[in-house]
Amino acid sequence: MEELTNIRLSESGDSLVIIDQTKLPGELEYIELRSREELFEAISRLRVRGAPAIGIAAAYGYCLCAKEDMEEPDFFRRMDDAERYLASSRPTAVNLFWALERMRQTLRKNALLPREEIVERLFAEAKAIHEEDIASNLRISEYGLSLIKDGDCVLTHCNAGPLATSRYGTALGPILLAKERGMDIKVFADETRPLLQGARLTAFELHNAGVDVTLICDNMAGQVMKEGRISAVFIGCDRASRCGDAANKIGSSSLAVLADHYGIPFYMFAPLSTVDMGAASGKDIRIEERDPNEITELYFEKRMAPEGIKVYNPAFDVVDHRLITGIVTEEGIVTAPFEENFNKAFQRKKARTENKDA
Amino acid sequence: MEELTNIRLSESGDSLVIIDQTKLPGELEYIELRSREELFEAISRLRVRGAPAIGIAAAYGYCLCAKEDMEEPDFFRRMDDAERYLASSRPTAVNLFWALERMRQTLRKNALLPREEIVERLFAEAKAIHEEDIASNLRISEYGLSLIKDGDCVLTHCNAGPLATSRYGTALGPILLAKERGMDIKVFADETRPLLQGARLTAFELHNAGVDVTLICDNMAGQVMKEGRISAVFIGCDRASRCGDAANKIGSSSLAVLADHYGIPFYMFAPLSTVDMGAASGKDIRIEERDPNEITELYFEKRMAPEGIKVYNPAFDVVDHRLITGIVTEEGIVTAPFEENFNKAFQRKKARTENKDA
Repeated sequence: MEELTNIRLSESGDSLVIIDQTKLPGELEYIELRSREELFEAISRLRVRGAPAIGIAAAYGYCLCAKEDMEEPDFFRRMDDAERYLASSRPTAVNLFWALERMRQTLRKNALLPREEIVERLFAEAKAIHEEDIASNLRISEYGLSLIKDGDCVLTHCNAGPLATSRYGTALGPILLAKERGMDIKVFADETRPLLQGARLTAFELHNAGVDVTLICDNMAGQVMKEGRISAVFIGCDRASRCGDAANKIGSSSLAVLADHYGIPFYMFAPLSTVDMGAASGKDIRIEERDPNEITELYFEKRMAPEGIKVYNPAFDVVDHRLITGIVTEEGIVTAPFEENFNKAFQRKKARTENKDA
Repeated sequence: MEELTNIRLSESGDSLVIIDQTKLPGELEYIELRSREELFEAISRLRVRGAPAIGIAAAYGYCLCAKEDMEEPDFFRRMDDAERYLASSRPTAVNLFWALERMRQTLRKNALLPREEIVERLFAEAKAIHEEDIASNLRISEYGLSLIKDGDCVLTHCNAGPLATSRYGTALGPILLAKERGMDIKVFADETRPLLQGARLTAFELHNAGVDVTLICDNMAGQVMKEGRISAVFIGCDRASRCGDAANKIGSSSLAVLADHYGIPFYMFAPLSTVDMGAASGKDIRIEERDPNEITELYFEKRMAPEGIKVYNPAFDVVDHRLITGIVTEEGIVTAPFEENFNKAFQRKKARTENKDA
């Protein structure tokens, strides 16, 4: 498999280079984002997508803003504006806010240093976020791998692979890892309407990696479960609340209901940066509603519904925590009671980080 | 609303004129089917679709074959071939076999008459099947209407409207009838991948009729149920078995699981010609598997998945009878125990028909 680098700084350090995911699988096109407006457009149009990847891109974007504005007298006010602007590019993925919050704290902590040095520290922080994501993914993938055995078949939805994160991905990590280790894991991938991330990205990544993947429409997932073909459901997570209710791509909550009905374990995959302990439950998670054209014009190509038709297009839904077998994090598999066990996971993370720093 | 006639004989009686449903909603194109091969192609490519409509089209098609071959010495053998050929155009919709069986019996019953007269009787029988469908739909629609009240909101899947049948349709019948009577019934229509019958046909028919219809992707149905917006699910039926297990467009069985989870009544709409008392349960219903291109090339326009990807494309699934609140027929709403109550419905139908004949 060709190793794809979905997000990196350009050599000059003046721009961010990303794979334009809206062009996949037809074209593998790298685009350069030079301004905050270009970054905003790339996130909101899903050229870069997946909760962890959005966080990484926003962190680098924050650095580019700092570099551009570092000579300005109202530098700090401008950075607050940049943060607010970038944060508004997508409302549901909490990693976006989490990454920007980390960047702001780095800015504040180093406020008295010369501007040039501040910018350096910001780049170092963005790079750390990126590297931590890679390390997290590998740990998440290992924990996920413990949930499956040779010959199993996993159903997935949307895309939580390397393109959505950094390396390995989250929900696809165990599958890619299993492949590297010579295990035989089959996958059914939901195409994931309206933007077809499953057909375009997940099928592409897994097929590239030599994994036995079968593409289905979203409305066929229940049928493959009913046929007894699915050992477990593995999906990503855009924001988990304290009680365990967790938002992910629209259709996820229905998969959870179906998995429960057919007695199939249902796992969500989330680095702890995706867990929002400030949100008590799913009710506190704002669900992004997107452009009706995504549905009526079939990925912006041809109109497939009558003119003037009303459309409802929520981008995410919230999976009830009672339907989640476990949430796989870089600090282990969190099960009910979620609040208590999330807290323990955060403590483990803190201890591990402090140990490493010491 | 412009009254659309989806199937009719041409004035000369030498061909069948249908709306090419694959062109909707962009173009309203009538095409003429002159040969059995053209009819076969139209059914298998879903130019004409919907269990009742397929039955009607096949009945007329049988007549056209008879007309063409009536001078042939091996007329009866040729008609057997024509029947087998037409029956193989789609494997799941039982109305196809039911209609062809009625045509064959008419042929047998009149075998000793002059050929010209046989052909006349066949045309009369096809016309009777067509007219009975219209009458059935109206009765089904009235029974369905008794299940909803002003202000309700119905979720539907695929297309069980006039285009799928003759007038009114089955699952959409109560909604169109309600509209005629000034009631306010809202509808959420699943787009129904892969061939988008919901987006292209249901949204088109309801929008045309002035019904408040909102289009969603299939994976959003669970979300609108969870939001408490749905009073009932109304869908069609391609074949019901004796025990009540019933096949319909892929995704139907998942909707039934979701409706059960959220406590929403789930109704299927089926003229009794759709009930196959010879099939003991869903296990006896053969599920048609269709071309992978339907999924990977987005309605034959542009490839949206990697080349060489495996695809699973079942056209139907079977709803477990335990998840069905009722099956709405022209002889009333059949509930569990289904076998017993189907038998009663068939008896009522028989009594009513005999009464009318007498």
